[in-house]
Amino acid sequence: MSISKKMREQMQRSSWIRRMFEDAERIKKERGADAVFDLSLGNPIEEPPSRFLESMRSAAHDAASGTHRYMSNAGYQQTRAAVARLVSQEQGVQLSENHVIMSCGAAGALNVVLKAILDPSDEVIILAPFFVEYIFYIDNHNGVAKVVESDDAFQPDPGRLAEAITDRTRAVIINSPNNPTGVVYSGSLMREVAKVLKDASQRHGHEIYLISDDVYRHIVYDDTPLAAVFTEYPSSIIVTSFSKDLGLAGERIGYIAISPAVGELEALFSACVTATRILGFVNAPALMQRSILACLDARVDMDLYRHNRQVLCEGLTRGGFRVVEPMGAFYIFPQCPEPDDVACCAALRDKGVIVVPGSGFGRPGHIRLAYSVERQTAVKAAAVLAEYGR
Amino acid sequence: MSISKKMREQMQRSSWIRRMFEDAERIKKERGADAVFDLSLGNPIEEPPSRFLESMRSAAHDAASGTHRYMSNAGYQQTRAAVARLVSQEQGVQLSENHVIMSCGAAGALNVVLKAILDPSDEVIILAPFFVEYIFYIDNHNGVAKVVESDDAFQPDPGRLAEAITDRTRAVIINSPNNPTGVVYSGSLMREVAKVLKDASQRHGHEIYLISDDVYRHIVYDDTPLAAVFTEYPSSIIVTSFSKDLGLAGERIGYIAISPAVGELEALFSACVTATRILGFVNAPALMQRSILACLDARVDMDLYRHNRQVLCEGLTRGGFRVVEPMGAFYIFPQCPEPDDVACCAALRDKGVIVVPGSGFGRPGHIRLAYSVERQTAVKAAAVLAEYGR
Repeated sequence: MSISKKMREQMQRSSWIRRMFEDAERIKKERGADAVFDLSLGNPIEEPPSRFLESMRSAAHDAASGTHRYMSNAGYQQTRAAVARLVSQEQGVQLSENHVIMSCGAAGALNVVLKAILDPSDEVIILAPFFVEYIFYIDNHNGVAKVVESDDAFQPDPGRLAEAITDRTRAVIINSPNNPTGVVYSGSLMREVAKVLKDASQRHGHEIYLISDDVYRHIVYDDTPLAAVFTEYPSSIIVTSFSKDLGLAGERIGYIAISPAVGELEALFSACVTATRILGFVNAPALMQRSILACLDARVDMDLYRHNRQVLCEGLTRGGFRVVEPMGAFYIFPQCPEPDDVACCAALRDKGVIVVPGSGFGRPGHIRLAYSVERQTAVKAAAVLAEYGR
Repeated sequence: MSISKKMREQMQRSSWIRRMFEDAERIKKERGADAVFDLSLGNPIEEPPSRFLESMRSAAHDAASGTHRYMSNAGYQQTRAAVARLVSQEQGVQLSENHVIMSCGAAGALNVVLKAILDPSDEVIILAPFFVEYIFYIDNHNGVAKVVESDDAFQPDPGRLAEAITDRTRAVIINSPNNPTGVVYSGSLMREVAKVLKDASQRHGHEIYLISDDVYRHIVYDDTPLAAVFTEYPSSIIVTSFSKDLGLAGERIGYIAISPAVGELEALFSACVTATRILGFVNAPALMQRSILACLDARVDMDLYRHNRQVLCEGLTRGGFRVVEPMGAFYIFPQCPEPDDVACCAALRDKGVIVVPGSGFGRPGHIRLAYSVERQTAVKAAAVLAEYGR
């Protein structure tokens, strides 16, 4: 009874993931790291762009006093205003600093928003396959995660969504480009989703929020168009980070942007600021808020991701996997030749390729490959995958 | 119903604090900022020491790849090992990196520990007067805060503590040097507290944790000795930050140190690492973890604090306030000449001195002064205070 019962259960439930990682580590030791191709981790591998590094170095040399002190819990006014200009451009809706709260990454942002809006037993809908951490985030704030299946192409299913909404539904979380599938949600389906939510909000007499996890927004291939949630649906909130597009996952910097059309904007903004404070984030790291200011439009180089996506999709297809070609992010979520995804992962591991079973993302029979890896790792893994079904 | 009922209540309960700050802002505008002496905020004013700034700049120029990526949720092994050496020295107990988890400040650290140990309705004892945020942190994780009064000198009262412990008590939070009182807990009383907790742990058949919030540990006057909780009590956990002693409040860097003598060390460590991940902190900011590495023993200059403490204590005493002289931190918590602390704050505000009523810290009849301010601010505020009772 040294730790909480719930924490013990959560740790036990995820113990198979730990075992999997331990198996991978063991194999790396046995065969040498060069003979093992690890596609299990979504850790952005590209270095931050040089414009960011210059900006960070100049911020570190800033001799003005007070630059490392507390600021407003919402973040520096100047950084929030710059983010507001960026989001205004991307969403086609005019925002000011009064719609933006700087956060400790998207994970921090999402916890803050859920803390702000959830009462005990309120329901939050997530679309399977999903980013596993959503379930923990919702549970942190006494919410209940309700899983709605996406269709075979991993697109949202407005009909199933409508059926899942109850009087307790407070929010729907979407993630496009998606982890684990790499899919970008189609504009026409997003309009249908918005219509479902508008109707349901009216029917139940309260706003149902659409929370859009936009962390992969700037990692998109072939000019695939992205829906602008603020244009589609008034009660929407964007949570995101600079982890992926500036390669800053370890620095914990992101933001919350609230649609100006949301009901009770001021209350929601204040609740997010209060949640930032009382959850212990207090504010997003000061130096990073100043570092990103000059390079919000800088991006990591996509060539590596584009290359890896192509060779892995080809390898998978040749190996008998059914592939929905990813349009963004750095993940592929193919269906295995056999129904048992855990067995498939074990077999691949024995051939030196480490991937994660789809069961962990709420969709068995699939595996997730993360291709934020060196070119040679992708090429060699693709060769193993191409032989898989033979 | 745009935000949660609880959040709305919490915001309403603290609306009087907001009104107070708004009044102060109004007065600053009316009279000019120079005519108003704001002692309301505990924002460390001293700049980080030059050794830290050099270390941070060198970390920012480090051209090694991967330095901004995710690392282990517990933090860099090297930083944790260095912190372990520091804590080993200070506590007289041998720690390794397996006892240390880097955190987003002490606020992040405390939320992580509470998430790791609390089941719903578990009780956490705090000593009044207390740092108000503790109540939110405990509530975040469905715990119940139980307030135990300290004595007239703001020292812990082992008898009252023993009476307050129930079968649901999971932890006691202490803070020495203390916010809001500036008091350092005496070694002999800490030994008595430890004895109470040992007896109660045995009686109730489970460990009661002593969580020591050490954020002001390195801001101590007149060589006042500090108790070493790891030496006094086996089930103790330190939460702290570099906000005060390195002047880095805005950068969100701190740590959790777990006593090696704690029961089920490995489970508690893993639970804290998991809580760091699922609460959305993910890890302490990477650049700051590397920046503090070379200067864990650097400290802010104390001359300013020492000066301000003296002039304000003198002014308060002359003005009819009863002062318990602070031994650490940068707060004074005097008893007002009149019983109504809110009226006292309003009267002082009208004379241009902004302070916070003791009611907000669970002890009416007192006010809190934060003296992390410029020398001239302290001198002028002291002159106003000296005239107060006349």
